[in-house]
Amino acid sequence: MAVLQNFQTFVFLDVETTGLRRDQPHVSELCLFAVHRFSLQSVLLDLPNIPRLPRIIDKLVLCIDPQKPFIPAAEEITGLCNRTLEENCKSGFNKAVVEAVDGFLNRQAGPVCLVAHNGLDFDFPLLRAELQQVGSDLPPNVGCLDTLLAFKDMEKSAHMRFRLGDLYYDFYEEEPAAAHSAEGDVVSLLLVFLARAPELMTWAALNACTWEQIQPMKI
Amino acid sequence: MAVLQNFQTFVFLDVETTGLRRDQPHVSELCLFAVHRFSLQSVLLDLPNIPRLPRIIDKLVLCIDPQKPFIPAAEEITGLCNRTLEENCKSGFNKAVVEAVDGFLNRQAGPVCLVAHNGLDFDFPLLRAELQQVGSDLPPNVGCLDTLLAFKDMEKSAHMRFRLGDLYYDFYEEEPAAAHSAEGDVVSLLLVFLARAPELMTWAALNACTWEQIQPMKI
Repeated sequence: MAVLQNFQTFVFLDVETTGLRRDQPHVSELCLFAVHRFSLQSVLLDLPNIPRLPRIIDKLVLCIDPQKPFIPAAEEITGLCNRTLEENCKSGFNKAVVEAVDGFLNRQAGPVCLVAHNGLDFDFPLLRAELQQVGSDLPPNVGCLDTLLAFKDMEKSAHMRFRLGDLYYDFYEEEPAAAHSAEGDVVSLLLVFLARAPELMTWAALNACTWEQIQPMKI
Repeated sequence: MAVLQNFQTFVFLDVETTGLRRDQPHVSELCLFAVHRFSLQSVLLDLPNIPRLPRIIDKLVLCIDPQKPFIPAAEEITGLCNRTLEENCKSGFNKAVVEAVDGFLNRQAGPVCLVAHNGLDFDFPLLRAELQQVGSDLPPNVGCLDTLLAFKDMEKSAHMRFRLGDLYYDFYEEEPAAAHSAEGDVVSLLLVFLARAPELMTWAALNACTWEQIQPMKI
């Protein structure tokens, strides 16, 4: 699927949205955590055996007026709604988002690999569609790792469940602390990644696709 | 000191550095939290009477290779050091920092007011010096609120202490959760601000200075 790439930085990504893929969603919140592979290789444990988050993480969180109604379940799950985003005078997905994301990614040692759970089906194509709607895009050779696909391939247990919260529970025997904000889900994703970081980095080198292979979602 | 300004967005700022002002410090970590005044006016309390952080916050955290040795106390306090920043391949304060910060600030409804504790003596002049070293700057009319100055002016109690941790303790009767990462200090600053948000926003409208009035630090 891809050329072997020795990714130096993994950028953990989550978007909150107005709905599911079938709803032609727009992004309402975007979160990126960039972690260098050095910090993914040297994990310290906190009690009760949950990895300590690396000290050196670059973070970007942006709330975005989706300029489209939320479906009720998305409002309830994410704690965001059209009214509060308007009250807080958030702009739509515009060139300033692109500027912030570009600057953020340009800070990271390359090659860079984006990481999202169910990213190939949802986060990557949606983000690419939003970027293209404002006449922009990411560099074509940025890597894209879908941890849903990677865990299904790596973990052979027939009984394993692969939703992010399920993986978190299977690894750490508790529920993630703050699900369904973009940042909360990125923290869960990073902690799940840390449970299998060496294997996932090897899997990414062999199997990650590139940004130019992502088909933008119809939104 | 300034023209009356009805700031719409307050951007809480903290930098971690290689040392104190006398050490001609460089920035090693930068954190910005942008909160619209709407969310500062409508505070919910969590137990034990600590405000809940607003749901809608834009966040930017960047770790930066200061390209200058840390003084030992700064390493110890911040958990950052030259070796780990190099191992994580962090760049210096460069044009990508400017791009990320510009994009981040361009997302915010204006007029924008930066907020930092002891900002007039430390964070603002240091940030301006770092920006100017890469041939950049912030817009001249961005507001600058120093909460140290504001609290000293607003709180008339002779016994009150005004360090950020002291204010936090005086308001909430406990120590701040995560001091001395840039993000931890911004969370403390935001919580301290929320204890007196209406008064501080009025004080800022009357007394905040502008970015162009900040004298860059000698670094």
